[in-house]
Amino acid sequence: MLSQVYRSGFQPFGQRLLPWVQSPGLSRSHRVQPSAIRHVRSWSNIPFITVPLSRTHGKSFAHRSELKHAKRIVVKLGSAVVTRGDECGLALGRLASIVEQVSVLQNQGREMMLVTSGAVAFGKQRLRHEILLSQSVRQALHSGQNQLKEMILVTNLDFHDEQKRRNLNGTLHELLRMNIVPIVNTNDAVVPPAEPNSDLQGVNVISVKDNDSLAARLAVEMKTDLLIVLSDVEGLFDSPPGSDDAKLIDIFYPGDQQSVTFGTKSRVGMGGMEAKVKAALWALQGGTSVVIANGTHPKVSGHVITDIVEGKKVGTFFSEVKPAGPTVEQQGEMARSGGRMLATLEPEQRAEIIHHLADLLTDQRDEILLANKKDLEEAEGRLAAPLLKRLSLSTSKLNSLAIGLRQIAASSQDSVGRVLRRTRIAKNLELEQVTVPIGVLLVIFESRPDCLPQVAALAIASGNGLLLKGGKEATHSNRILHLLTQEALSIHGVKEAVQLVNTREEVEDLCRLDKMIDLIIPRGSSQLVRDIQKAAKGIPVMGHSEGICHMYVDSEASVDKVTRLVRDSKCEYPAACNALETLLIHRDLLRTPLFDQIIDMLRVEQVKIHAGPKFASYLTFSPSEVKSLRTEYGDLELCIEVVDNVQEAIDHIHKYGSSHTDVIVTENEKTAEFFLQHVDSACVFWNASTRFSDGYRFGLGAEVGISTSRIHARGPVGLEGLLTTKWLLRGQDHVVSDFSEHGSLKYLHETLPVPQRNTN
Amino acid sequence: MLSQVYRSGFQPFGQRLLPWVQSPGLSRSHRVQPSAIRHVRSWSNIPFITVPLSRTHGKSFAHRSELKHAKRIVVKLGSAVVTRGDECGLALGRLASIVEQVSVLQNQGREMMLVTSGAVAFGKQRLRHEILLSQSVRQALHSGQNQLKEMILVTNLDFHDEQKRRNLNGTLHELLRMNIVPIVNTNDAVVPPAEPNSDLQGVNVISVKDNDSLAARLAVEMKTDLLIVLSDVEGLFDSPPGSDDAKLIDIFYPGDQQSVTFGTKSRVGMGGMEAKVKAALWALQGGTSVVIANGTHPKVSGHVITDIVEGKKVGTFFSEVKPAGPTVEQQGEMARSGGRMLATLEPEQRAEIIHHLADLLTDQRDEILLANKKDLEEAEGRLAAPLLKRLSLSTSKLNSLAIGLRQIAASSQDSVGRVLRRTRIAKNLELEQVTVPIGVLLVIFESRPDCLPQVAALAIASGNGLLLKGGKEATHSNRILHLLTQEALSIHGVKEAVQLVNTREEVEDLCRLDKMIDLIIPRGSSQLVRDIQKAAKGIPVMGHSEGICHMYVDSEASVDKVTRLVRDSKCEYPAACNALETLLIHRDLLRTPLFDQIIDMLRVEQVKIHAGPKFASYLTFSPSEVKSLRTEYGDLELCIEVVDNVQEAIDHIHKYGSSHTDVIVTENEKTAEFFLQHVDSACVFWNASTRFSDGYRFGLGAEVGISTSRIHARGPVGLEGLLTTKWLLRGQDHVVSDFSEHGSLKYLHETLPVPQRNTN
Repeated sequence: MLSQVYRSGFQPFGQRLLPWVQSPGLSRSHRVQPSAIRHVRSWSNIPFITVPLSRTHGKSFAHRSELKHAKRIVVKLGSAVVTRGDECGLALGRLASIVEQVSVLQNQGREMMLVTSGAVAFGKQRLRHEILLSQSVRQALHSGQNQLKEMILVTNLDFHDEQKRRNLNGTLHELLRMNIVPIVNTNDAVVPPAEPNSDLQGVNVISVKDNDSLAARLAVEMKTDLLIVLSDVEGLFDSPPGSDDAKLIDIFYPGDQQSVTFGTKSRVGMGGMEAKVKAALWALQGGTSVVIANGTHPKVSGHVITDIVEGKKVGTFFSEVKPAGPTVEQQGEMARSGGRMLATLEPEQRAEIIHHLADLLTDQRDEILLANKKDLEEAEGRLAAPLLKRLSLSTSKLNSLAIGLRQIAASSQDSVGRVLRRTRIAKNLELEQVTVPIGVLLVIFESRPDCLPQVAALAIASGNGLLLKGGKEATHSNRILHLLTQEALSIHGVKEAVQLVNTREEVEDLCRLDKMIDLIIPRGSSQLVRDIQKAAKGIPVMGHSEGICHMYVDSEASVDKVTRLVRDSKCEYPAACNALETLLIHRDLLRTPLFDQIIDMLRVEQVKIHAGPKFASYLTFSPSEVKSLRTEYGDLELCIEVVDNVQEAIDHIHKYGSSHTDVIVTENEKTAEFFLQHVDSACVFWNASTRFSDGYRFGLGAEVGISTSRIHARGPVGLEGLLTTKWLLRGQDHVVSDFSEHGSLKYLHETLPVPQRNTN
Repeated sequence: MLSQVYRSGFQPFGQRLLPWVQSPGLSRSHRVQPSAIRHVRSWSNIPFITVPLSRTHGKSFAHRSELKHAKRIVVKLGSAVVTRGDECGLALGRLASIVEQVSVLQNQGREMMLVTSGAVAFGKQRLRHEILLSQSVRQALHSGQNQLKEMILVTNLDFHDEQKRRNLNGTLHELLRMNIVPIVNTNDAVVPPAEPNSDLQGVNVISVKDNDSLAARLAVEMKTDLLIVLSDVEGLFDSPPGSDDAKLIDIFYPGDQQSVTFGTKSRVGMGGMEAKVKAALWALQGGTSVVIANGTHPKVSGHVITDIVEGKKVGTFFSEVKPAGPTVEQQGEMARSGGRMLATLEPEQRAEIIHHLADLLTDQRDEILLANKKDLEEAEGRLAAPLLKRLSLSTSKLNSLAIGLRQIAASSQDSVGRVLRRTRIAKNLELEQVTVPIGVLLVIFESRPDCLPQVAALAIASGNGLLLKGGKEATHSNRILHLLTQEALSIHGVKEAVQLVNTREEVEDLCRLDKMIDLIIPRGSSQLVRDIQKAAKGIPVMGHSEGICHMYVDSEASVDKVTRLVRDSKCEYPAACNALETLLIHRDLLRTPLFDQIIDMLRVEQVKIHAGPKFASYLTFSPSEVKSLRTEYGDLELCIEVVDNVQEAIDHIHKYGSSHTDVIVTENEKTAEFFLQHVDSACVFWNASTRFSDGYRFGLGAEVGISTSRIHARGPVGLEGLLTTKWLLRGQDHVVSDFSEHGSLKYLHETLPVPQRNTN
């Protein structure tokens, strides 16, 4: 039967599952990596027994990040996934997107199986042709019973008889070999009731009393790597969902089983969930990893399966291997409470910690360099030379790092607890606004391991808890640098305030922990900043993704100064975000010696010139015209445009700039002040290089970064950018009703003196 | 033919379109409003000629917000929508979600038609049964030609012959009458080439030379209200997409046609787009509104059709009626440039504007109250009494509003341009950090029209541009108050700095204008704040959605003070966000006179008590236990819980609080200071009512709001919360290379004196 219907040759999945869609175009090209295609094609010629698995089956995955290696995957769809919430039949959109996801995974070279639940009976008349397994296997196995039921179901009976089991197994393998996605259908309603003492007690006595245990049974029988169970619950919770403390459990270990509950965010204890957990644990024992997740939410259902396989934190992942370290959620809590303790230390104590860390960096130099060598050796040949350079540490790098840390320690003395404002509201009722840490920072940094102690020192100086997420390539270096940081923190008992997040954690997942993280600071390329700004859900990101800096050369600019300023701004370090990108020249300067001098200098410095449209129109032979006036070259390239006056320069900057740093060169003070007043950027300079836009050069002590945001910190950000404020009110028994229209008291609102600020 | 196959009675859409899905459950219940169901049912019995339209056809809609009234809708699906980008056949997920959307709209009581393009030929063998029109109409009209072609296509020929047109028309009406969604299929590839001089010149000579004009033709013929054209382009752009200035055109008017281009964000000039525009204009002329949008983007394709019908800003909307006012995008630009001008005024000038506005509020009192009366009359019977009270203005309200404005004017003197920090970086190189406005604010406020002048005054005082979005119910009041604001602004030529957004604009659309708006401030219920925090995409929102304030009564609390403080905090104005929600009592106080006194007072004040779990366990007969310790009652209800000590109180506050305002009552200064130090909330008080947490009571002058964010402003926010800073650097010809290791200069970083702050 099977062979007659389906052995007509290799055809891609789409056609198999939904035969009403047929097209000559379907089997042509798939958007998968060439290697995957080759893989798929070669299988169909490989005999059953040697189907290559990319890993040895028998051990479940320890971490979500490994799920991408799953070769054979069973997706179990609960009734709630298959049918619409409004009881209007099948959830077509959802089913179609599940089909697309399964198809994508199949085309990646995986072996996919679907297990659907009884709800598919809805469409049984029409789906009859599609439900491969139910039809063919059952007919092959036995016949003569209730015809309808037999056509739809695989029940526990199929597993009890050794011969039947072997047949089922063989058929499924055969289907997979042909690159067909078997769909196993089950039906809660007609499944025989559970037999007494047939509960989950081990591989051999499992009774398939419900769809989930059937899926688990099948998954283990088929030596499946991953079983994805989709229903209308989010997964397991650590207390009843909807209660004050309920948190979705990301990873569930068999030993933890007594303490969980389950459901959606608002509903508790869905029927059958206990069976789901039991089935999952049973599958796990059999070497199959399991993820239980919600497959009904419209916002995720389009990618829930692929997300799970990609290792994203969706639902609850069942793992036998309890990792040694804490989860990132636990780390977040440790950073929060550690940070709160750090914030209540005396400023001197925080400075001591940083000094101690600086000492450790030089004292433990050999150990650090040894770890770094390991990273370099592992990266050799895999990373480009500039990246290797960023990755490598040296004695001199460590020395200057230690010097930098001591500077941070110095500027930390006057950060947390500084009184900004004092007001006498009434007699014996005094208000104070004081600086306090923001809370928990997440700093994401690329290759450079020297970032770690620097960022840690900034967090310590500002009393913030810190989650550090470094690059995989610097694992060994980061580990030792973090250990030293914790050693330094220990001297005042706040070891946990700085946490190093496991490299397996996905940045995207971290960026969603809005209950745990108050501010994200990306340290790296502008691409990293952009990615993180995009990924951060409800958490502010401090940074700048663009630095399109302008210099306007006014008609009254000094000839001597211009060339100096342009050269420094453009050529000194063109990759910096504060390097010059667009030179705006007053029209009157065209064809003057000053203009020629600038062009000559740029030629000598080998700067490639791009002409703005107006500039090009003034020239007989112009350099290539710019593609966009909004370009950050980050290289020895410069856009030149002509403007009629300072107002046009300002308008250009507002239209095409990134509000980072913009400069005017002029000898006319009035023009300069007009420019300084009117340009709406974080940094506006007069007769100075754009490159001064930098925390160290500004004298801010430690630089946290440069922000082009208009909220919170703006421009180069020092320690202050890591602080917020709180209001302290000290009264006796003051109530507001005493201050009402007919009350006995009146507001004084006297400004009280504030201790003067000790800058530097 | 038609009658044989489909006249088997009324059945919902899902079954019609995809006959392979059949189930007895399908026709049962639909999740639509009862009225809509009734509507649908009644239709099937109404003869063709009297199909009731909710509006008279013949005039297109003037604004997107009216699209929800569209009764008959044609959805045209381009090839790119129907097929997958990777050329792997049909886009199943997309098609299924389109089917679901069309079904939802049909079930709302609308008449839906689909026009698909040639790509459907892919599935023609299987789809043969589904494509109702192509099969039946063509067979009814004529026969004997190429069978395949005839079965799939409706071409221009069908429109040329009067009789054929009438037949087509009649058949479609008949299908709609039966609540069937007709699917008209067309095929670019086999459509006859355009005839000479058959271009778009008017209704009667239109030649259906492409699918879009066919859809337009059909839409007009069928007196359709709305034609939705989905393809792989975003809509019309005002300059080539991908260029520096390209913006998607939200509303397109026939007269503007010379200046547009089209495409996606990254691609220019898709083939056939000109024809799309022509077809759209032609449909518009025939009284059918048109929206051209992208139907292929995975993030929107699941709701693009319903979004358009709901009036959301998706793609380009074609309208014959050019509204009198500017678009919200233009308003954003006016607010930006107006705000920049406002920021460069002298502080005295900004204060003058506010004073003038205060004068106008009293001078023009009669006009304001007249407008307000109109609003009240229109709202009568539609709004509840408390809302009517909020909506109504009075002479005394206007007077106190004017007083408030004068206070804002006073505090505005020292806001913009204040120097916060000065540093000498080197000789003749001086750095200054000054306060500047944030940029453009969007303030969204509910019913209360007195919000408008108050918020406008805050924006003027801080030099910010402002977009105001008020409630529909206050239209007349808001209009006059806004006119007066602009009159006041005119005295210094900055009339455009404050813009009132049309009430038709959706809040959700405004919250997406991240290029235009720097900060959103919701003024209204916490539900409003939550909604806006959710809707805001990449724009910070200032506000607080929760105020779960605690009071911890320490074992060393004074008996006299506690009752006073609890009563004021809980009972004085329980709806306020700074009202008390949870009372934490030291265990030692249980069964003391102090405890009895608190309970007695709460009884007298008729406060309903909810017991925390620990408190309940101490009592023989306890009040009802709390559902959640994280509840904001906003009413005369209070949660009481017992704690062992101050540390446990702090832990409770950190776990269940909202970091708004938390209070300790104790006579022990050491305990009090420990609490003030350790509680991580915006406001932490000692022996004072929670209700002091307020900008006016804090003496901040004008209150912008209360923020529970940890970034930017925190706690009660005054004008300072509407400011950011910029850095001004004044040099001579300073370059950073002079400061390098071997350079001639060294950084001085001398702190220079800052002009002392004039607080009050």
